[in-house]
Amino acid sequence: MKTDKTKVKRIPKRGFYDKETVYKILDSDFICQIGFVYQGYPVVIPTIYGRKKDVLYFHGASVSRMLQTLEKGVSISVNVTKTNGLVLARSAFHHSLNYESVTIFGTATLVEKDSDKLEALRIISDQLIPERWEEVREPNQKELHITKVLQLKITEASAKIRDEGVHDDKQDYTLDVWAGIVPIKKVYGNLIPDVELKEGVAVSKSIKKLIHEKIYKAE
Amino acid sequence: MKTDKTKVKRIPKRGFYDKETVYKILDSDFICQIGFVYQGYPVVIPTIYGRKKDVLYFHGASVSRMLQTLEKGVSISVNVTKTNGLVLARSAFHHSLNYESVTIFGTATLVEKDSDKLEALRIISDQLIPERWEEVREPNQKELHITKVLQLKITEASAKIRDEGVHDDKQDYTLDVWAGIVPIKKVYGNLIPDVELKEGVAVSKSIKKLIHEKIYKAE
Repeated sequence: MKTDKTKVKRIPKRGFYDKETVYKILDSDFICQIGFVYQGYPVVIPTIYGRKKDVLYFHGASVSRMLQTLEKGVSISVNVTKTNGLVLARSAFHHSLNYESVTIFGTATLVEKDSDKLEALRIISDQLIPERWEEVREPNQKELHITKVLQLKITEASAKIRDEGVHDDKQDYTLDVWAGIVPIKKVYGNLIPDVELKEGVAVSKSIKKLIHEKIYKAE
Repeated sequence: MKTDKTKVKRIPKRGFYDKETVYKILDSDFICQIGFVYQGYPVVIPTIYGRKKDVLYFHGASVSRMLQTLEKGVSISVNVTKTNGLVLARSAFHHSLNYESVTIFGTATLVEKDSDKLEALRIISDQLIPERWEEVREPNQKELHITKVLQLKITEASAKIRDEGVHDDKQDYTLDVWAGIVPIKKVYGNLIPDVELKEGVAVSKSIKKLIHEKIYKAE
């Protein structure tokens, strides 16, 4: 997937072009930023996504300006970025950020068939919270009709990763300045039940699993 | 700041155009996605930023392709998005996300004077970790020379916020499905000292303050 567009120019050793790396990053998040050109100027819009195999899915209201623009087949750029740690050096210059980022270039197309749309919506749902789809009421015809789903084949993509410690200039190691990493994590907080939650309805399996896997354990 | 570009089209009640709201979101994060057009196609690149008054600052290596493109005065779109909660409804269709997002349109310019560059770098540093700048070795002439700083005047910006509970269809409230919010937080983990940390150097004030303010308290 290394092309002229996706090639990481700055610090090439941080560039990755294999599916395994790219998909691992995509699969550990659910929000991306889509860039496209609208009436001559660049627009960046955040949206949730789901990945299955070599395809990224987006959805939204049928009347969405972004989706209406994208389905025309314009070029898009998709970015997913996770910030994993502040890198605190002894010098201001060598401060940095540990992160994982994926960029995809391509052209999205409309998912037309209802059965394919349903499947894509399930994939997006699974990206946010696996197996939730099986617990809830599925979309009906009316809901499906007012929802648009787009698919982007992942053919031109790259990842950029910084996952290192501190690099200071030789003479700065003698400074009395604390240096190291402050890890950053995205975690889930305590559940807030809907005020109209029916009495006796317990937290479902998908939610328990999500929270168990990803909640932050204070040390 | 409500213009034809920034006006929130989908669900207008979620759009905000006042500085207070826009700046509060910008100030609670430090990473943005910048969209621009490069050789005819849209590119989205993540970068850290700092805000002071009505200006957003970016920096990078002088040889950075993005900065070299932006300093030519091309149109850019900047997006900052924070995901605050999964909104779990009883129906797949009404699942949603609580988030805060800011979009800015404009044209960046180069910060030329060394003293202005230094000040801008301090502002970016403060955005990630306030007061760290005072604890570390400041950039020297060589470092300043190989660093480029851009500024973007915030004149055309908007925020979009969803901060609500679950909205289900009337007939779905009787379903035996747990509904509510799973809050999402960005937190800091335990510090990882640099392997070459000088003996006896304690964690500094800025780091203690950062972690104290933002670390997740397990409940």
